[in-house]
Amino acid sequence: MPLAARTVLITGASRGLGLEMVKQLLKLPSSPEVLLAACRDPGSATDLQAVARSYPQLKIIKLDVENDEDIRAAFQETQTAVGDRGLNLLINNAGIFTNKQDGGGVSQQTRDRLQKHFNVNVTSPLIVIQTFLPLLQQAAARDQSQGLSCNRAGIVNISSAMGSQTITFAHGAGTALDYKCSKSALTMASILLARELKDSGILVAALHPGWVKTDMGGQGADLTLEESIQGCLNVIGSIGQENSGKLINYKGEVLPY
Amino acid sequence: MPLAARTVLITGASRGLGLEMVKQLLKLPSSPEVLLAACRDPGSATDLQAVARSYPQLKIIKLDVENDEDIRAAFQETQTAVGDRGLNLLINNAGIFTNKQDGGGVSQQTRDRLQKHFNVNVTSPLIVIQTFLPLLQQAAARDQSQGLSCNRAGIVNISSAMGSQTITFAHGAGTALDYKCSKSALTMASILLARELKDSGILVAALHPGWVKTDMGGQGADLTLEESIQGCLNVIGSIGQENSGKLINYKGEVLPY
Repeated sequence: MPLAARTVLITGASRGLGLEMVKQLLKLPSSPEVLLAACRDPGSATDLQAVARSYPQLKIIKLDVENDEDIRAAFQETQTAVGDRGLNLLINNAGIFTNKQDGGGVSQQTRDRLQKHFNVNVTSPLIVIQTFLPLLQQAAARDQSQGLSCNRAGIVNISSAMGSQTITFAHGAGTALDYKCSKSALTMASILLARELKDSGILVAALHPGWVKTDMGGQGADLTLEESIQGCLNVIGSIGQENSGKLINYKGEVLPY
Repeated sequence: MPLAARTVLITGASRGLGLEMVKQLLKLPSSPEVLLAACRDPGSATDLQAVARSYPQLKIIKLDVENDEDIRAAFQETQTAVGDRGLNLLINNAGIFTNKQDGGGVSQQTRDRLQKHFNVNVTSPLIVIQTFLPLLQQAAARDQSQGLSCNRAGIVNISSAMGSQTITFAHGAGTALDYKCSKSALTMASILLARELKDSGILVAALHPGWVKTDMGGQGADLTLEESIQGCLNVIGSIGQENSGKLINYKGEVLPY
């Protein structure tokens, strides 16, 4: 089923995967009626601003996911923008991976570096989810005849196979303790949330976008942005109850945790 | 093989699992020549002090695992105490689980609460490991004829099956997002460290002690402290290369991640 969520919010939308998701979402046959593109600094998000000039349904909002006041303000803006529809789809895409240069082994870590990865990659999406939950519940409650889907009410956490036991050593990313441990925790959070929110009609999935040529992934990566996001949006549109709480890749394959 | 590490350090040793490990280690046939029991406040650790009066090989040291200065000072004390032997076994036991009352679902979380769990349960053991690594390498290098073992050089992280995909919903602990995500990350850290430190001759394992009647586990738990720790010490003594990087329970069974 192609993705047809009416209201969508994406964090980290000013570049990389997030920006490409925005672009491709706007070109879907059933593109969102309201698409909120959240980023830390809307003033410098020139690519996003350029897209917004052609698509009035795109609304850029300020959201530093580490800042609880930003999250509350973004909730208010979103509530106003989506109205009675509530929020069909929340994509937690904002994330960091700072260790490409040094390999990220145990000797390269510091307390701040580890805590920063946990904060941006796990704690922040959880606080975003907590804050936006009423809007997701509102969307879920409007269509109780449907099963779980991202067209009704879904949370997609952009996680990584690098936080999965089986593929954690692929791709020469080094030990990357900070990144891999945080993504592992984000996938576990997705498993737990899927169970917790099922009765509210909300789907939760952890999505591995592949290794993508972005600032984060580097130019030696496997996939172009376009390929990855085309796959991701297809997968998001087709996830159902049976895959809620799973780690799924951009091809729709369920990965072992 | 019964555990026969000559020098051992345990964090969180003033009560619960840590205190019981200290007591049982001292009664082993080949008990440690130097056993460092680290805790946040040695002055109030009356049980530990009572044990130390009968066992001169037991040394109580101050170590709040959230405090990097404490960790460095504890390293200095340990280095002095173990001398040329280095450190054979580091048991990262200190940990928190604060959510028994409220279930720990997404609505019960705060940023501070989540970050506290990551800091105590994952980041802190990693910084402890980083700091103590030279002493573990020293111990490993003294006996290069041996394979990996905790008698030679080992790191045991007390993790939990609650951070494992398959058993994460057992035991009615609620959603416990904070605890389960942090233990999941600690197990991933153990997997990664095992790989990183293998060539230095250092074994790393994540150990699930079972659900134990302690302040943390509550009195409805499955196991007495004595049963759990008897099992844990047997397992620690017998882990070899084949189980480095695995999540293992107190019965020696390898658990799925």
